Amino acid sequence: MTRRTPLILIASLLLCHAAAAQTVNSVREYRRANEHRIFSEFVQLLSLPNVASDRENIRRNAAKIVEMMNARGLKPQLLEAATANVPPAVYGEWKVPGAARTVVFYAHYDGQPTDPAKWTGTRPWEPTLRDAPFETGGKILPMPAASDSVNPEWRLYARSSSDDKAGVMAILTAFDALKAKGITPTVNLKFFFEGEEEAGSPHIVEIMSRHRELLAADAWIVCDGPVHQSGRKQVVFGVRGDTNVDVTVYGAKRPLHSGHYGNWSPNPALILVKLLASMKDDAGRVAIPGWYDDAEPLGAAERRAIADAPAYDEQLRKELGIARPEGGGKSLLELINQPSLNINGITSAETGALSRNVIPTTATAALDLRLVKGNDYRRQVARLTEHVKRQGFHVVDRDPTDAERAAHPLIAKVTNRPGGYNAERTPMDLPVSLSVVEAVQATSEQKIVRMPTLGGSLPLSLIRETLNVPTITVPIANYDNNQHAENENIRLQNLWDGIDTYAALMTMRPPTK
Amino acid sequence: MTRRTPLILIASLLLCHAAAAQTVNSVREYRRANEHRIFSEFVQLLSLPNVASDRENIRRNAAKIVEMMNARGLKPQLLEAATANVPPAVYGEWKVPGAARTVVFYAHYDGQPTDPAKWTGTRPWEPTLRDAPFETGGKILPMPAASDSVNPEWRLYARSSSDDKAGVMAILTAFDALKAKGITPTVNLKFFFEGEEEAGSPHIVEIMSRHRELLAADAWIVCDGPVHQSGRKQVVFGVRGDTNVDVTVYGAKRPLHSGHYGNWSPNPALILVKLLASMKDDAGRVAIPGWYDDAEPLGAAERRAIADAPAYDEQLRKELGIARPEGGGKSLLELINQPSLNINGITSAETGALSRNVIPTTATAALDLRLVKGNDYRRQVARLTEHVKRQGFHVVDRDPTDAERAAHPLIAKVTNRPGGYNAERTPMDLPVSLSVVEAVQATSEQKIVRMPTLGGSLPLSLIRETLNVPTITVPIANYDNNQHAENENIRLQNLWDGIDTYAALMTMRPPTK
Repeated sequence: MTRRTPLILIASLLLCHAAAAQTVNSVREYRRANEHRIFSEFVQLLSLPNVASDRENIRRNAAKIVEMMNARGLKPQLLEAATANVPPAVYGEWKVPGAARTVVFYAHYDGQPTDPAKWTGTRPWEPTLRDAPFETGGKILPMPAASDSVNPEWRLYARSSSDDKAGVMAILTAFDALKAKGITPTVNLKFFFEGEEEAGSPHIVEIMSRHRELLAADAWIVCDGPVHQSGRKQVVFGVRGDTNVDVTVYGAKRPLHSGHYGNWSPNPALILVKLLASMKDDAGRVAIPGWYDDAEPLGAAERRAIADAPAYDEQLRKELGIARPEGGGKSLLELINQPSLNINGITSAETGALSRNVIPTTATAALDLRLVKGNDYRRQVARLTEHVKRQGFHVVDRDPTDAERAAHPLIAKVTNRPGGYNAERTPMDLPVSLSVVEAVQATSEQKIVRMPTLGGSLPLSLIRETLNVPTITVPIANYDNNQHAENENIRLQNLWDGIDTYAALMTMRPPTK
Repeated sequence: MTRRTPLILIASLLLCHAAAAQTVNSVREYRRANEHRIFSEFVQLLSLPNVASDRENIRRNAAKIVEMMNARGLKPQLLEAATANVPPAVYGEWKVPGAARTVVFYAHYDGQPTDPAKWTGTRPWEPTLRDAPFETGGKILPMPAASDSVNPEWRLYARSSSDDKAGVMAILTAFDALKAKGITPTVNLKFFFEGEEEAGSPHIVEIMSRHRELLAADAWIVCDGPVHQSGRKQVVFGVRGDTNVDVTVYGAKRPLHSGHYGNWSPNPALILVKLLASMKDDAGRVAIPGWYDDAEPLGAAERRAIADAPAYDEQLRKELGIARPEGGGKSLLELINQPSLNINGITSAETGALSRNVIPTTATAALDLRLVKGNDYRRQVARLTEHVKRQGFHVVDRDPTDAERAAHPLIAKVTNRPGGYNAERTPMDLPVSLSVVEAVQATSEQKIVRMPTLGGSLPLSLIRETLNVPTITVPIANYDNNQHAENENIRLQNLWDGIDTYAALMTMRPPTK
């Protein structure tokens, strides 16, 4: 680009803009004419239970995606790991004669585990339409007939409706639209749909290593996560790392009647609350020594991008019913650039209707540790474990033996779940970074948001470390999708917008500046 | 007794002992000859789900007990509360011509709620025999045929096998044995089987008030709870009071992705652990101001009885795998004479296979407060609530409104479940107290234990306050029965011993000293 004259540059820029605008219009035209078919195919995909540990059903999902890709001529294949019987990745490709660059489009088809009983009025794998979010009184609607129009503000409720079958659907439908409208992609397309991202991607390195040549590319574009809370589209250049730690503490070997033994037999629920309370201060800051030491400070470009991002904390605070956020006054965007320690859940015996007057035998907390650039997840887990020891606990990695129980008043089982990984950040000034920003901007009248890092985590460090390729994340889901929780949903307009976005990415051009 | 001459006293004493010994032998003879029939009837009773809130099934239990009492000629009737559709008490009676005293025999037929999925190998309402406790490797046995002998060390697993259908069964079978052997009870017998004791007896006062004349008696003998941990029989003169408090704290209104919002959105699990940690010190002593202020010190007779009780803490400690009990070195018996605050359970989102990387929306603790003589449960709950307020919480009694969420960073819902009651203690030197001790002692070669109070709770203060009658508790269950927890069981010998005990109580005589 640098050798062109300004005049040619301007001409090229105008042509590009015109071409991009034409592409967006064509894609929208296609989508409007095919909404019911797209919707129906999505509902079929969402009807398949997709927890990665449910090995039988997860393969039914993979088979469905193979069927969808076959119908599009994408030559699908299952990429298996070396380990037997783990969820395969589904791969497909579309070569473009003369294309100089190759881009892998990533999404994942597995979803977070969920307790169907906790869903309100709908079930995780029975996709259901509502006319608005259920939290604001949205009513359940009948599924639309082929002749019905679909209101883009409607919400489709199902596990993975946003995270991340929306990604699979947007990518494959964007391809349909280009093909139907005779628009040739500018890059060779490869598709990689992972099947155990929500389990921490324990086999993605195996799969990538075994299929290194097939997966060769200039960049991976990752469709996962929500758009900005303001509703603006965003391009994200990094993700936090993540690892999960489970902590269990022990009381008597038998559940005991709280009347006969209370005041005497140690209560593991009390032991756990004391331990967890020691890990963070009242403002939510982690009190474990060294927790913040390794985090690399943000650079100038990243600080500028954060400053440019829409101010949204105040609206979010009101909407979520939060009187005082954690973090001592720092903004959400600043805070997601710090490592975190979050309690995902605590269980000890029962509460509510099933609660009984017992002293529980154990108490368990599920923790997740988010990591930023500079952190290593193994080092953070070691710091956490050291902290538990300093609180007087004998630390084990399985249930204690009788001899250990006899010897140690305080015992904690601390286990690091498989599948942890570190944070990743792609430079914002690479040519492909600039191309992606321009392609996405061309689909939106609002200024898109450029984020140095998403708060969420994806195994992007594993992709770069294994395949030596940069990753850029372009999310599409509505931010209020109840991701990872019960009542997950997608706003249909977000799926429609996602189709535009991914068609634009498949036809992206070299950066104009 | 005081006017008799010493010679007559001795003769009477010998006669009494001889009569008591004869009764025990006859009752055992009856039981040995009818073990299979007793066992079968018990299994039928245990097969009926009996959680008090399960209104349909609880009435099936009452109907079964009516049927059992009809078969014995005990003229059963259901005593209903004034409130509609609550579990009835089942009442029956047997008048003894010339008897000067009337005793009500109490047990309860409802059981604690339980999660069937947490039972190990058996289900709560499918009674199952094991050859030993499952914790020590006990194997499941087929149900014995009529011709099979029954090993008294076997355990019968079922909800309420110990607590407290064993009470119903022992009382009704003791009566069978006396009747079959032609032994006339020494007192008029009344039977009162409650149907919602485990729910905190919310309607027992209503029922007693409506049937005051029917229930007139000189004493109530209560069959509930375990024998002493040493295996010795015990007579208990008091119980602790009890009340339950549920505490829920709040985070954002929606479950949030811990990556996108962790470090910024308040985590209710963290808020709860901080709050609970503030309630007790590391040794388990309650840190809420005034908690121990109202407890009446033990009198000389009670201190003597505690000193006389077998030293059992050390063995219990080993058996339960407890390296260091709470209480700073005080004995279990001393500690149950102090008020307590116990965490029965904590839940916030999920742990284990269902855990997800979320920030929970709420965190809940179930607490029970045990009370000793001098405490008032309303006053203890007020102290707890004040403590929560002093930790900076806005306290509500239902979920907070949006306006409350906006105004208060910390909100706690603190609710006191219906059905709380105070502690009760009957003087150990009443004539009926002495009679009961002698009757139970006559069935045992080991010295029985006299306890000023049980650690557990029964609504005995309500009985005395409503009917102006003393209560004495004579438990029969094995102490390792997993009372209130999953895998509840009874050791068959404890049921057999309980039959002896209750037959002795139905034929008790005035005290000899």
